[in-house]
Amino acid sequence: MPEYTPPTRDMNFVLHELLDITATGIPGYDDLDRETTAAILEEGGKVAAEVMQPLNAVGDREGCTLENGAVRTPPGFRAAFDQLRAGGWTGIDCDVAHGGQGMPHIIGTALGEFFAAANMSLNMYHGLTHGAYSAIRAHGTEAQKALWLPRMAACEWTGTMNLTEPQAGTDLGLMRTRAEPQPDGTYRITGTKIFISAGDHDLAENIVHLVLAKIPGGADGAKGISLFIVPKVLVTEDGALGARNAVTVGAIERKMGIHGNATCVMNFDGATGYLLGQEHKGLRAMFTMMNEARLGVGLQGLAQAEAAYQNAAIYARERLQGRAVTGAENPDGPADPIIVHPDVRRVLMQARSFIEGARALTLWAAELIDRAERQGDAQAEALVSLLIPVIKGVQTDRGFDTAVQAQQIFGGHGYIEDHGMSQFARDARIAMIYEGANGIQALDLVGRKLPSKGGKALVAFLEQIKVFGKDNAGDADLKAGFLDPLTAASQDLQSAAAYFMREGFKAPNNALAGAHDFMHLFGHVALGLMWAKMAVVARAALAEGRGDAAFYQAKLATGRFYMARQLPETATLRARIETGAEVVMALAPEEF
Amino acid sequence: MPEYTPPTRDMNFVLHELLDITATGIPGYDDLDRETTAAILEEGGKVAAEVMQPLNAVGDREGCTLENGAVRTPPGFRAAFDQLRAGGWTGIDCDVAHGGQGMPHIIGTALGEFFAAANMSLNMYHGLTHGAYSAIRAHGTEAQKALWLPRMAACEWTGTMNLTEPQAGTDLGLMRTRAEPQPDGTYRITGTKIFISAGDHDLAENIVHLVLAKIPGGADGAKGISLFIVPKVLVTEDGALGARNAVTVGAIERKMGIHGNATCVMNFDGATGYLLGQEHKGLRAMFTMMNEARLGVGLQGLAQAEAAYQNAAIYARERLQGRAVTGAENPDGPADPIIVHPDVRRVLMQARSFIEGARALTLWAAELIDRAERQGDAQAEALVSLLIPVIKGVQTDRGFDTAVQAQQIFGGHGYIEDHGMSQFARDARIAMIYEGANGIQALDLVGRKLPSKGGKALVAFLEQIKVFGKDNAGDADLKAGFLDPLTAASQDLQSAAAYFMREGFKAPNNALAGAHDFMHLFGHVALGLMWAKMAVVARAALAEGRGDAAFYQAKLATGRFYMARQLPETATLRARIETGAEVVMALAPEEF
Repeated sequence: MPEYTPPTRDMNFVLHELLDITATGIPGYDDLDRETTAAILEEGGKVAAEVMQPLNAVGDREGCTLENGAVRTPPGFRAAFDQLRAGGWTGIDCDVAHGGQGMPHIIGTALGEFFAAANMSLNMYHGLTHGAYSAIRAHGTEAQKALWLPRMAACEWTGTMNLTEPQAGTDLGLMRTRAEPQPDGTYRITGTKIFISAGDHDLAENIVHLVLAKIPGGADGAKGISLFIVPKVLVTEDGALGARNAVTVGAIERKMGIHGNATCVMNFDGATGYLLGQEHKGLRAMFTMMNEARLGVGLQGLAQAEAAYQNAAIYARERLQGRAVTGAENPDGPADPIIVHPDVRRVLMQARSFIEGARALTLWAAELIDRAERQGDAQAEALVSLLIPVIKGVQTDRGFDTAVQAQQIFGGHGYIEDHGMSQFARDARIAMIYEGANGIQALDLVGRKLPSKGGKALVAFLEQIKVFGKDNAGDADLKAGFLDPLTAASQDLQSAAAYFMREGFKAPNNALAGAHDFMHLFGHVALGLMWAKMAVVARAALAEGRGDAAFYQAKLATGRFYMARQLPETATLRARIETGAEVVMALAPEEF
Repeated sequence: MPEYTPPTRDMNFVLHELLDITATGIPGYDDLDRETTAAILEEGGKVAAEVMQPLNAVGDREGCTLENGAVRTPPGFRAAFDQLRAGGWTGIDCDVAHGGQGMPHIIGTALGEFFAAANMSLNMYHGLTHGAYSAIRAHGTEAQKALWLPRMAACEWTGTMNLTEPQAGTDLGLMRTRAEPQPDGTYRITGTKIFISAGDHDLAENIVHLVLAKIPGGADGAKGISLFIVPKVLVTEDGALGARNAVTVGAIERKMGIHGNATCVMNFDGATGYLLGQEHKGLRAMFTMMNEARLGVGLQGLAQAEAAYQNAAIYARERLQGRAVTGAENPDGPADPIIVHPDVRRVLMQARSFIEGARALTLWAAELIDRAERQGDAQAEALVSLLIPVIKGVQTDRGFDTAVQAQQIFGGHGYIEDHGMSQFARDARIAMIYEGANGIQALDLVGRKLPSKGGKALVAFLEQIKVFGKDNAGDADLKAGFLDPLTAASQDLQSAAAYFMREGFKAPNNALAGAHDFMHLFGHVALGLMWAKMAVVARAALAEGRGDAAFYQAKLATGRFYMARQLPETATLRARIETGAEVVMALAPEEF
């Protein structure tokens, strides 16, 4: 059975040594000293490793069942969710006013990695509630906030997001669900929604569905969509549970993974709904939370990669097969552990160098979100909006790939479900799809974020790399191993962006045909920047003789691997982008 | 539910226009005129599409069950297998002397793609039988051949390969299964084997297990291993079924995919076995069939990619979401089909350009095997031995990736099992692992095949590219679109090989750390060569006004995509290889 050890040491490195969070001046960050975060991460890590992780395989094997219209979660999920609630983990980054702990987003993100690595399906019940919480917090009336938020911060009631319909996925303008206004100010919601994660379950007394629907008479397409609060069980003004609302589960889906989370077809048959925010502004209200939600999915990619990597490393140290080509390293045993083989080491280094870079990038983005929210910093907002599609797309693509490669280390045993490596790959797969499929992330990046305000955010990002390079140019070792590759990669990024500006202007397909490659090119540069920054910190620590030298040396070695063997892929990506759309669009649709 | 249309047009293109098989002079090929192969492919394609494919999802959903020590295959498998037998498809490339049709390997390979695309799990029962058939044919006594082969050619009895044990996977020298000689010349086989595909089932009256075991007193390690025929049911000399042998199924595995094929733990408790070939030469006997078996697995990667691609293309043409950025292409509909989006087109072109190149490469390799076997051509033998690890490793890695990308086209629907796209990915995953995990293929390529006879086979392969380039240098369009990229890629290959010779000599890890990248670099060059050759054929056909111009134009467009957007990856692979082992091996095993 798989194991999981929360990477608290590395998390603290990123928070305090790389980001130096207490020095940022962001409101709420001054409380986050080393002792405080160490205690939070240690306790949260225990919950992840001891309460959630042992149920991960159970959830996969047993799945959710639909009986008499109600979903039953896998054995043990209810008790574990009770422990999450009792420990206050569900509200850690919710407002104190709603009974939360008031911690900034960066702490919720750090803990979120542990929870998502330990048990992605179970953690989704909480994650979706947090998304719905944020939407009501941003757009609800005072009365709505008072009624719903305290219960949702505590996960006494959970939340869902109801967007997709059979004919309306990415294109929400095609939505058919109707909301008819009633004389009492409520709405009657009628329609069918699909792919509703945590749509029903037995973990909480009530479920607060956020539902997109059209009020008759509104504009066509996405402009006519409004957002509604539609509870599973109707509640009185003081929150007492009343009658069942006209919301039913039509079916639960048989899926490739995340079996522990019920993916429901939801039927709304004249269900009572309450308008959230303004009429016809539903999409905007739903997407206010987009940065947070997409960062959360990028985090899942990273988290599944970490869990898979840990088990691959353990297996590679323990599994005895063959001998090192350079001579036996375990001469008294029947064979050497497979970790002696360079190709196994390559896979582990790829995994590790991706994961540690992605962890830094994710927490940096969480810091930028906090900075934007808590300080109204428009530059931080613009930068994180640029980074979010990159983080979501790249970390889920590469997170899945890492899980697959970790599975490969196990050989045939990786294909057998009992070892748990298949589950990491199958669970990680969904993160490439939901919350905007990765092709949509690439489109968002190239079609919207990149050209926004004349490309100002990218210019600022590239400028940051240049300044960083200049500030550290005096260190020759750093320059050779980190700064020079980073400069080369960022020139590829700049060149590709310039190509889009030039050729996309003439024909937009020239930009769109390269969008996916550009997203990955950007991801490499962002991860390369994280590695260069981590290298500076590690070299300083070693020079000053601070702390655990082995940790910093391993950090540098891992970074060097990334810079030498992963980052140079930017050249190919750039070359591919600059071939434009012609070869991509050469065949007519009917020729495929 | 997924559909499948056998790509007979493209298969005939490769056989007759690219390879021009009737002109090769290989014994048996002169019968393979266009009419003959068209009829075979059409009939075989019907069996694949109408008999096997409809059971693919059934097999995945229902799986195999173990009841009272016997495996039951999914509903319908037995009837379909009966049709395969009745149609003579199982023995199509078996000897006429054993009741087969005597067709060369290239025909078995062409049909094998259809069968593996339609239903990989069901086809494995036949595929493994064919492997065991070939081993007995190569190493059996006349009496053994007479007894076993006719029944196996007809799949009246099926076959298995029993290599792996819990502690002995890649490292077969660690094997513990014993074979004790008996006075009557038989052996008593005792031990446990795992991961035995088709180890038990209800499709045939008997199962002929080929089992590797150690005769006491033999050498340690791989040199002490012998190969045995161990039938499930003992048979008399004239083939009548007798008592059950002491072979039992310990368990069947719960796996990520290929649920329709039972993966068994086999227990041999003093089972009666018959020596196949010489004592202590078992590994060599088993691996005689390696080229054929590994080509078959590479074919599975291609086949699953083709099946997934076909369904992604259909979905992309039918699914209406969003509008083309260049203006509505389906103005009367609610939205445009998603195939209008360049990023969707990119995925389809990647899939298609890989698949068509891989089909050509696979059939060329099958031709080389026929040439080696039927004409004793040592050069063909050397070249195909070099190509086989590339085909197995690259086509299964990229076949899986293609299936995953095809699944992505479906968005959330791709993650739902009912659409069948998950199955393609899950089934394709095993091909990266079995018959030598892809890391082992890379090792075989770089550690054994490449240095063999001073690198003669690679030199010959590169020379072939050079000659081809010179012969076609007069065609400027061809040169720009195909020959120049191919030359650049083959220079990367040559440079990487030279790096291995130079630096691997100093420290073998410098070669092994780049083995996986080298395998993919080689794969690109091999596929690039196929595309350049196909382009020559297509351009000639267009120039001469032969046949269906649209087919040849699509072929050229698909090839241009490969050359412009896939092949340039060789530069990154080469750069990565030439960084050597230092950054790969920098961390100690305990630091992971």
